[in-house]
Amino acid sequence: MPEAIKADPVEILRNLIRCPSVTPEEGGALALLDALLSNAGFTTHRVKLTAPDTSDVENLYARFGTRGPNLCFAGHTDVVPPGDPAHWRFPPFEGAIQDGLIYGRGAVDMKGGVAAFIAAGLDFAAAHDNDPENAVLPGSISFLITGDEEGPAINGTEKLLRWLADRDERIDHCVLGEPSSRAALGDMVKIGRRGSLSGTLTVHGKQGHVGYPHLAENPIPGMVRLLAGLKAEPLDGGNAHFQASNLEVVSVDVGNPAFNVIPAQAQARFNIRFNDLWTPATLAAEIERRLTAAAGNEVRFSVAFEARSSDSFLTAPGEFVDLVVDAIAGATGRRPELSTTGGTSDARFIKDYCPVIEFGLVGTTMHAVDESTPVDEVRALARVYAGMIGRYFAAFGR
Amino acid sequence: MPEAIKADPVEILRNLIRCPSVTPEEGGALALLDALLSNAGFTTHRVKLTAPDTSDVENLYARFGTRGPNLCFAGHTDVVPPGDPAHWRFPPFEGAIQDGLIYGRGAVDMKGGVAAFIAAGLDFAAAHDNDPENAVLPGSISFLITGDEEGPAINGTEKLLRWLADRDERIDHCVLGEPSSRAALGDMVKIGRRGSLSGTLTVHGKQGHVGYPHLAENPIPGMVRLLAGLKAEPLDGGNAHFQASNLEVVSVDVGNPAFNVIPAQAQARFNIRFNDLWTPATLAAEIERRLTAAAGNEVRFSVAFEARSSDSFLTAPGEFVDLVVDAIAGATGRRPELSTTGGTSDARFIKDYCPVIEFGLVGTTMHAVDESTPVDEVRALARVYAGMIGRYFAAFGR
Repeated sequence: MPEAIKADPVEILRNLIRCPSVTPEEGGALALLDALLSNAGFTTHRVKLTAPDTSDVENLYARFGTRGPNLCFAGHTDVVPPGDPAHWRFPPFEGAIQDGLIYGRGAVDMKGGVAAFIAAGLDFAAAHDNDPENAVLPGSISFLITGDEEGPAINGTEKLLRWLADRDERIDHCVLGEPSSRAALGDMVKIGRRGSLSGTLTVHGKQGHVGYPHLAENPIPGMVRLLAGLKAEPLDGGNAHFQASNLEVVSVDVGNPAFNVIPAQAQARFNIRFNDLWTPATLAAEIERRLTAAAGNEVRFSVAFEARSSDSFLTAPGEFVDLVVDAIAGATGRRPELSTTGGTSDARFIKDYCPVIEFGLVGTTMHAVDESTPVDEVRALARVYAGMIGRYFAAFGR
Repeated sequence: MPEAIKADPVEILRNLIRCPSVTPEEGGALALLDALLSNAGFTTHRVKLTAPDTSDVENLYARFGTRGPNLCFAGHTDVVPPGDPAHWRFPPFEGAIQDGLIYGRGAVDMKGGVAAFIAAGLDFAAAHDNDPENAVLPGSISFLITGDEEGPAINGTEKLLRWLADRDERIDHCVLGEPSSRAALGDMVKIGRRGSLSGTLTVHGKQGHVGYPHLAENPIPGMVRLLAGLKAEPLDGGNAHFQASNLEVVSVDVGNPAFNVIPAQAQARFNIRFNDLWTPATLAAEIERRLTAAAGNEVRFSVAFEARSSDSFLTAPGEFVDLVVDAIAGATGRRPELSTTGGTSDARFIKDYCPVIEFGLVGTTMHAVDESTPVDEVRALARVYAGMIGRYFAAFGR
């Protein structure tokens, strides 16, 4: 198996960092990948996606090989803004390397992952004479790269997957290269994610003067009661693959500037990260049940859930997860924890099409000033991905 | 006793309403009173008060007679803004009369009260030949009129009282003409007021991502716990003259626009209306005790109290309150409830100088669109004040 990589992922990463691809700007990043992959025999598609009230976003799909199975690596080249460059040790779009670390916005999240799997893919293509019609090809590898992961995520992975499906382009398994490692490369792989459901709770009262509380109805004690009721009991205890579901109230707002006025209403906003014991619908019903019970007949409230909730998903341990774990262990010496913790990712869209896991760099510095990653870990990550490709086709290839 | 009034309080009120004296504008209102009173033999003082970061405000003090005792009527000619005049049935600064009601901003709060006691005072002066040196004068009557009651109240009654004290000008008893009646003129007189203490509670947490709550510290559950602790037990049960003290949380604010971020802190603002079982200092200590108990060692909080708190006060029933009640009953046929309810008023400043009660019109329409009062009640109120003057000098005069 080709676990020694000839293409240099650090050089690719450095060039990617030099593209100022803050969402929704393409910044030259996709053009750079497009050129690299086209030259290596990949068929590439630049897909510009649009929607009302959002910026147009460029995306890239590239495939080497025409037969199945199709192992897809997914990721994004867009990055969050760097903030004031003066706060950075090195310019955020320079790709400076010092003491074994490469610095720059996106080094970890996730141009590092993209560079690593592109290098592994170039190696795979080179090993097959850069000929996508090569008779000994065991299947296809592909890259699904969006420019809208850090932004609204409307003109990105979700639509790009529909665009593929509309063309009868099939993905059989997917590796998302988001930073998944916790303290050392290889210590954690994400085999699922919790779902996310957000909502806004409004408690209705009646405005009045603080000196005459009997003529008013202060919504804040009712809000305190409902929020206490929401959090009084755990939602669940978790299960074999998931930690317990968790509700966080992220804001409470009244916006009353006066000390002598009882306000007319209070709002709270909450987010729930939930495991596969729930769907957004069953969870919303449970929240309404808890609020109704806490309110009794005494608190007037309404609750509205955000339309863009995401379901949980799990790629259950089995042959695919096993080969992923083996590839990680083979290249890093670490057997990763199978985790479903953390925030959401574009895997929430991919899981509707095929099994997906997430593996990538250590995420500690993501979104931070002086975002950086050891160059050795970028090279090791490329070897992990190459190992996945080898083991994947050994297991599933023609 | 001169309970039939010759000066017409409705005419004075109409002229006052025509002065657009929205705080801090004098609007011609004090000039109008100054002229009326000067012509009737009063010695008048226009006092312009100033302070950094506030508007200059004009005030008026006028006295008829040079000897004690000095019965003072206090009030204000400034009014709150009318809002959009188009929403009014009649222009808010016109003083239209229809179906026995006089309409206009300030009709109730409190140009009506001012017009009534000025009319009573003009009558008293006329009955003494408008001669402040008249040998049969039983004492003095005076008017303390501010233009800064509805505003910051910094360049108003509080300073005007100090200005009088600095000149060795003594007030023996005071009647504040704020609207005190509840449903019918004469049904309620205020013999005290609760104090007011405001504060801001901050709960400190640690910002983080909603997907990783163990790395963050959400301040909102702590805020819910502290607010529940603040309101769990009544502050007191009230006493013979005061209702129970009451705490209202008037705002809770986090200001977090994101559903996926756990905020760093939460703030709540509260106001307490308290009776004479407390001082601002003992109450602040009790609030800190309750918060500390509710927080345990688990919630990090800080609390800051507003500097401008006001103490409670009570003009205990006795000879002065009795004659006030008799005057009200004599002119209206109603024996008023002795009340200490409601918001604060400038009586909070006056009580440091002499006994003070508050009696005036029915307050229902104050600060509202179409503020209005029956002209008959303005005339009846003038007769009440005239009755107070007569009974006052019968009891306390030389």
